[in-house]
Amino acid sequence: MTKISRQLAAAFPPPVMEARAWAAAARLPADLPLLNVSQAAPVDPPPQELRRAIADAALHDAAAHGYGPVLGLPALRAEIAAQWAARYRGRIAPDNVAITSGCNQAFCAAVASLADAGEAVILPTPWYFNHKMWLDMAGVEARLLPCDAGMVPDPERAEGLIDARVKAIVLVTPNNPTGAEYPAGVIAAFADLARRHGIALILDETYRDFHSADGAPHGLFAGDWQDVLIHLYSFSKVFRLTGHRVGAMICGAERLAEIEKFLDTMTICPNQLGQRAALFGLQHLGDWVAAERAEILRRRDAVRRAFAGLDGWRLLGLGAYFAYLEHPWQAPSDRIAQRLVAEAGVLLLPGTMFAPKASAGGDGSAERQLRIAFANADTDGIDALAARLRGFAT
Amino acid sequence: MTKISRQLAAAFPPPVMEARAWAAAARLPADLPLLNVSQAAPVDPPPQELRRAIADAALHDAAAHGYGPVLGLPALRAEIAAQWAARYRGRIAPDNVAITSGCNQAFCAAVASLADAGEAVILPTPWYFNHKMWLDMAGVEARLLPCDAGMVPDPERAEGLIDARVKAIVLVTPNNPTGAEYPAGVIAAFADLARRHGIALILDETYRDFHSADGAPHGLFAGDWQDVLIHLYSFSKVFRLTGHRVGAMICGAERLAEIEKFLDTMTICPNQLGQRAALFGLQHLGDWVAAERAEILRRRDAVRRAFAGLDGWRLLGLGAYFAYLEHPWQAPSDRIAQRLVAEAGVLLLPGTMFAPKASAGGDGSAERQLRIAFANADTDGIDALAARLRGFAT
Repeated sequence: MTKISRQLAAAFPPPVMEARAWAAAARLPADLPLLNVSQAAPVDPPPQELRRAIADAALHDAAAHGYGPVLGLPALRAEIAAQWAARYRGRIAPDNVAITSGCNQAFCAAVASLADAGEAVILPTPWYFNHKMWLDMAGVEARLLPCDAGMVPDPERAEGLIDARVKAIVLVTPNNPTGAEYPAGVIAAFADLARRHGIALILDETYRDFHSADGAPHGLFAGDWQDVLIHLYSFSKVFRLTGHRVGAMICGAERLAEIEKFLDTMTICPNQLGQRAALFGLQHLGDWVAAERAEILRRRDAVRRAFAGLDGWRLLGLGAYFAYLEHPWQAPSDRIAQRLVAEAGVLLLPGTMFAPKASAGGDGSAERQLRIAFANADTDGIDALAARLRGFAT
Repeated sequence: MTKISRQLAAAFPPPVMEARAWAAAARLPADLPLLNVSQAAPVDPPPQELRRAIADAALHDAAAHGYGPVLGLPALRAEIAAQWAARYRGRIAPDNVAITSGCNQAFCAAVASLADAGEAVILPTPWYFNHKMWLDMAGVEARLLPCDAGMVPDPERAEGLIDARVKAIVLVTPNNPTGAEYPAGVIAAFADLARRHGIALILDETYRDFHSADGAPHGLFAGDWQDVLIHLYSFSKVFRLTGHRVGAMICGAERLAEIEKFLDTMTICPNQLGQRAALFGLQHLGDWVAAERAEILRRRDAVRRAFAGLDGWRLLGLGAYFAYLEHPWQAPSDRIAQRLVAEAGVLLLPGTMFAPKASAGGDGSAERQLRIAFANADTDGIDALAARLRGFAT
């Protein structure tokens, strides 16, 4: 028998892989092609000019093959600092910025700098599942904060969860899985709450570039922020670089010196070609990103229209890549999701992947909820999705 | 004041960065160029045909930009399984192989699957510093096993360190920092020891391709191995891919299913271009690697000759990229290393980076030892290094 550490054994397996197994097992008729709205990732490759830039670096930039600084390419750190300072109207220096091997690693590093095994972090539900998995395998308690009806967590309710073991609060906005865009006032209230209790606010803005509002999504960087804020970001969605594993984090320089130890030990440095791709994107693809965002927002409107016409469904959250829905059926969401792929050719994820099941202490809401990642479906696909859900009977 | 978790604060900062700071601070005369023998990394980029293959993938392989399987590219896992099975004359299946974001991550994942915070892992000294750092920041005790004179750890002495908290033994062969190539019999004895106590053997073979002996460096894969062995590997040195962050691990499939959770949570998947580069290397660069190895072995002989002529020096270990030396001076190695870069233009690493100082419970040997990474110095450079050390007086 293979002996596994208690902490790692406590973490659940990657939900996306479970969903892929459902799809692989499905035997769909030829006239019912799979509608895959399970994955929060662009399916198309990056634009040709970005691919060309990566190829040129591979051929002509010898340094693109060697180790680089642990905290990332200096030019990329400087570009992020400058662009973020402008966007958020705040003061952000290059030495507040670290490049990471994807945004998941940034989260892991942030938590490692804050909480030891046996301590706790406040995590709103529905959660982003890799956040829950990392807390479990680090032996850090995920103290769960169920969201209210609008899928926005409540700072007052959060305050009731804080004790001496709690070291941080995690927010994801726009949210994965719900799509909810947290109001700037709520984000500010969480920052105040964290500051009052001497803990940190981890703010994951992976989907920032698809926010429906123009301008800065919050005002935290415009004030004093280094004592409380750890901002996380990903280049995976904005430039379609998922396979390159490049993310970023912004925090106080003292914390970053500690996080540098974690990143050095885990991966030595972020991969060099991906960093060059991210820098090219920031410097050259602004107009392209604006068009991508406009298309996502069109699809978002299409989802709103499609579900407005579906009896018994309730749209709980909508934004970025995601719609979070209450379904009209009696069966629990994990059963429904498995039947939907097998019988209707629709692959989506059940709420039970984003919150504890009722059998594990959940309040039962996870069983009533489903996540749709609509970013890869065009408006025809969204209409087809709604038609299949309308025709599905449990 | 920035509050940092106890576990991360307990880890020391990356030693290589400290050494780089010494070099940056040095003001060397124009006729004394820096001889940098501190770093275990090839300085030249990979061969042109490999760079071309990476560029082609960036341009023409759309999947090279998207997420891939958590455990890596199936073709790369299969190629490793086949080549390793042939080299080690053992049974290794593709589902025993995971691709990681560098070999450091493979180590972190292996330890995470074995030991919780508060448990322990046996780590020979001199250690590879990122191993010690990860154990510290994971809250896992590094139970230190000082090597004997030949820089080879003793299984009997290791047995005396095992209690119920110990979950694994770590070996690195050929060793970083000492260069020692552990005899196959010693490796087998450690595997037997681990098996008798129901713990794991983590065997890091990052420098395997520069071993001075032909054939398999140990016979573990030829027997039953899945219950005890976790093998680690890196593509960084063999194909000069340090900046691409690609490593590998081989272990039992049940453990790998747990490790998959760790890798998914930390980085989702290894970066895709680096994996394609590693696959190209395995399939096409066998002769090129053979020539690289022959050159490293020539440099190794040059180091042996050069230090044989140096009064008062003792060569403790020699192999792969490294020579581990006892210096003839009274001053401690960390003082000597700083003075060597400032006064003689030689950047090497002191033994105090690889074992506890006497002031922290060490036996004093670290103060007498220095590591030279000779792989980037040609035979003229090695002679120049010896001449500078001969002329240096403390």
